[in-house]
Amino acid sequence: MGPGPSDISPEVLSALSRPVIGHLDPLFVGMMDEVKALLQYAFQTKNEFTIALSAPGSAGMEACFVNLVEAGQKVIVCRNGVFGDRMIQNVTRIGAEAIVVDSPWGRAVEVDKVEQALIANPDAKFLAFVHAETSTGAVSDAKSLCALAQKHDCLSIVDAVTSLGGIELRVDDWGIDAIYSGSQKCLSCVPGLSPLSFSEKAVHVIKNRKSVVQSWFLDQSLVMSYWSGKGKRSYHHTAPVNSLYGLHESLIHLHNEGIENSWARHRKQHELLAKGLNKLGIEFIVPKEERLPQLNAIYIPEGADDAKVRDYLLNNYNLEIGAGLGDFAGKAWRIGVMGYGARSENVALCLTALEDALNQ
Amino acid sequence: MGPGPSDISPEVLSALSRPVIGHLDPLFVGMMDEVKALLQYAFQTKNEFTIALSAPGSAGMEACFVNLVEAGQKVIVCRNGVFGDRMIQNVTRIGAEAIVVDSPWGRAVEVDKVEQALIANPDAKFLAFVHAETSTGAVSDAKSLCALAQKHDCLSIVDAVTSLGGIELRVDDWGIDAIYSGSQKCLSCVPGLSPLSFSEKAVHVIKNRKSVVQSWFLDQSLVMSYWSGKGKRSYHHTAPVNSLYGLHESLIHLHNEGIENSWARHRKQHELLAKGLNKLGIEFIVPKEERLPQLNAIYIPEGADDAKVRDYLLNNYNLEIGAGLGDFAGKAWRIGVMGYGARSENVALCLTALEDALNQ
Repeated sequence: MGPGPSDISPEVLSALSRPVIGHLDPLFVGMMDEVKALLQYAFQTKNEFTIALSAPGSAGMEACFVNLVEAGQKVIVCRNGVFGDRMIQNVTRIGAEAIVVDSPWGRAVEVDKVEQALIANPDAKFLAFVHAETSTGAVSDAKSLCALAQKHDCLSIVDAVTSLGGIELRVDDWGIDAIYSGSQKCLSCVPGLSPLSFSEKAVHVIKNRKSVVQSWFLDQSLVMSYWSGKGKRSYHHTAPVNSLYGLHESLIHLHNEGIENSWARHRKQHELLAKGLNKLGIEFIVPKEERLPQLNAIYIPEGADDAKVRDYLLNNYNLEIGAGLGDFAGKAWRIGVMGYGARSENVALCLTALEDALNQ
Repeated sequence: MGPGPSDISPEVLSALSRPVIGHLDPLFVGMMDEVKALLQYAFQTKNEFTIALSAPGSAGMEACFVNLVEAGQKVIVCRNGVFGDRMIQNVTRIGAEAIVVDSPWGRAVEVDKVEQALIANPDAKFLAFVHAETSTGAVSDAKSLCALAQKHDCLSIVDAVTSLGGIELRVDDWGIDAIYSGSQKCLSCVPGLSPLSFSEKAVHVIKNRKSVVQSWFLDQSLVMSYWSGKGKRSYHHTAPVNSLYGLHESLIHLHNEGIENSWARHRKQHELLAKGLNKLGIEFIVPKEERLPQLNAIYIPEGADDAKVRDYLLNNYNLEIGAGLGDFAGKAWRIGVMGYGARSENVALCLTALEDALNQ
């Protein structure tokens, strides 16, 4: 119950150990078509360019930036935690300019401030933000932020690593242009893959770049034909076949449950957890209306030893909770209620175990 | 029996489906120390910086180039197949200059030509080449090429994607400075990881770069502390835990067999295959002394239909062989005898099935 990787269901674990087949085998290619359709469902999009990148979410972030942004361009980046900060590093490594909009750690991105930045920088081409900040447990208003981006002629780049499958996320309805996620949070697949989706506008930008993408491995113009289903599937790199078996299986689970039911389940388990934490006198970092159900950042109670409590939980209950990151290192714990892990028995165990640990 | 992914043993497949644990869990960190030691054994190196990159071999290639090479520098790149060509693309995307030494497809890199290029370019900083060209089945003389690099004050960058575990490879004895491989060829683990090792000299170069590495995800200065075993393991990205279970298991197999025994097994199975192909009148592309045992590139016999034969093998024998790549598309097949796949029963099946397919 840390901030990820989340628990994986026996079915997904079992899918991983199917015999490997070639990445150009017709059976595998057929499965990839299904993965694409299932990812479109998870993202709530019809985007033709919807894929699983063969690397972790942080590579998915980089893929969005290096494919869309060119040197010298302006990107408005919202920072309210570790991952907004990482976006800035991605922008500057391209030789582009990051206009940083800071909001307090543990709070949502301040939409008004973002609008001011958009007005002050009419030459900005992109607006980038994190939907669900894994480092702080705060959700931002992706719908409003994307509407602002459109109004100011910017493409939106959205980090959905922790949000996909756990909270409402509607790529097409909200007009998101580029979005990446991770396989190991609310999808409960193994870590190592990054679901990725680009709108037609984003694909148009990629196809009309002036400069070559600085990364060969992440250059999506080289893999578009593989995923398009049109014509010959050409070789780019050897796909992580077994991890994709797992992703396929986990996306089928999500589809069978129904995406809105999955959102509701995360919400319900979060409420059970919050109620129990409240009884233990533990306080949330994030105000109620900006809280992520799947990532619960709480203040370490006075007198409790950060590392000792986490070790105790791990050694006595086989239970992991996460340490604080960045500004919150040593001050917070992060409890994940994600994907297959978002079940009553886990929440119950966590509350009992935490109470025991705090009484040691 | 294609050019990869190779067959995976039941033990490695089973390891994949162990329950996921956190990437900072002490148990996992302990396993990573073992993975590092086992990779050092596989590479025959004492290099402190020996890791498994969380992405496929093509990202391993890019990691070597973007960490070592800076814009404006000269890199001598040997090209005798698809992967040498990819190296050139990596160099130019950094803004560095590639001095290309071309050797014929299906042949080893010509050492004399490389020496001439080194003499003609005394300001070159790196010599890059592919040890085992997966696209052609040719092995190059890595030992001589690395000795040349040292003589001319260049760091060597070596592609060992198909060579690691399959043929003699001695990183320390040969003085290789940067080397990357893939998990899914002769190691017979799942595709998606890239073993990587840097010499002290290479690490020194990385630590003393003038510019920031253009890729955040591949910037090895950010992960050195995670793998060093010294001090705190800091978070960079979520490691692909389950794939690493598989790599750990497959490296234990290699260790138990003994690296020299593994090289000998690949050689022996290749000889059985070559004998059988000879009986079928099928010719190798690569001259005998430059042939890779693990990747057998053969001319498609006159009158045989490339795709039909491969489909027949797949549909009737559940057997994959690879198509030709690049210059050899439509002209060659590539038969992999790699890792767990390098066994007598596979070679026997392949020969019988191929004879049947050619008689259809």
